[in-house]
Amino acid sequence: MKHLHRSDLRAWSIFDESRDIDFNTVAWIRDAGNVLIDPLPMSDHDLAQLAELGGASEIVITNSDHIRAATELAQRFAAKLSGPAAERDSFGLACDAWLSDGDEVVPGLGVLEMHGSKTPGELCLLLEGATVITGDLVRGQTGGALNLLPDAKLTDKRAATESVRRLAAIGGIEAVLVGDGWPMFSHGGAALKALAAT
Amino acid sequence: MKHLHRSDLRAWSIFDESRDIDFNTVAWIRDAGNVLIDPLPMSDHDLAQLAELGGASEIVITNSDHIRAATELAQRFAAKLSGPAAERDSFGLACDAWLSDGDEVVPGLGVLEMHGSKTPGELCLLLEGATVITGDLVRGQTGGALNLLPDAKLTDKRAATESVRRLAAIGGIEAVLVGDGWPMFSHGGAALKALAAT
Repeated sequence: MKHLHRSDLRAWSIFDESRDIDFNTVAWIRDAGNVLIDPLPMSDHDLAQLAELGGASEIVITNSDHIRAATELAQRFAAKLSGPAAERDSFGLACDAWLSDGDEVVPGLGVLEMHGSKTPGELCLLLEGATVITGDLVRGQTGGALNLLPDAKLTDKRAATESVRRLAAIGGIEAVLVGDGWPMFSHGGAALKALAAT
Repeated sequence: MKHLHRSDLRAWSIFDESRDIDFNTVAWIRDAGNVLIDPLPMSDHDLAQLAELGGASEIVITNSDHIRAATELAQRFAAKLSGPAAERDSFGLACDAWLSDGDEVVPGLGVLEMHGSKTPGELCLLLEGATVITGDLVRGQTGGALNLLPDAKLTDKRAATESVRRLAAIGGIEAVLVGDGWPMFSHGGAALKALAAT
């Protein structure tokens, strides 16, 4: 797995040919149990590494288009599955918990709901106040900048913009780790502000 | 291919399991002929895209450990191959040109020689004064920072540090696109200065 800007984070990626971006998974490695966000299928190499680091106790799925390999990995590691509360009735997968705004996955990993994205109540996570982990709404098609899902995919652009403004208004954000595209490891707050201003 | 911080740059990557980093190739797309730096093997998808964009007229190999798929791609696209002049006698591949400090690959793409790395005269490129493209010496093991090759691989640490200091002293650098590891799309000059200071 790749190393990120914090020594307790790992990631793996799969290049998506239809969009020419990497899809990404973030893993937060913790003594109290690792948390995976939107886990993609893993190579044997990465899987062995994750097992060595304790497997996973929590898997968060930010939206129903990011279920990816969550079910298999939850079974393999006996991890708890959490999904967005706003999709509870249509998610197509029985989660152990349903998250909404203000919840915490585990201490230090807070939940924000995004609105207007392609699915209702898409989850965005805030790790210890400085690292944002996004699902689909905020992404990185080009290096060094953030962009929104294309208008055609948004259910409510005004609400989506409002959600980004809310993210951008959080002080102290350094990194924005996107589910899709290039992560930003520093100056992420400024990139969110730039996105909110467009 | 992935899009970088400039609309005329593309990249592709292969994850290296022995180091847990991506190896990367940068392509500069130009009307006058595309330039590939340290080209890795390409997927059919990326290859078709590159062909659509005009193939390649120049391939630069920064050091003899980064020959990768240069020979096959040079043959496929009838591209000119350039390697480091300091390795001319031992490169193991007949290049069409041998580059050294102060040369230009094509207008706007300047050459700097790095010293003390694992091979002599490793090439580092400077694209239009603001984007550094590195071979092996400067790399990105963790997100958002730059690091040097491990000491055990350097032939002369003092010379290597001096080469990094020289890079760091160039004003106006925004991006540092590393051959190995995480690229930095912004604030690259500050990251080089931080590396030079360690």
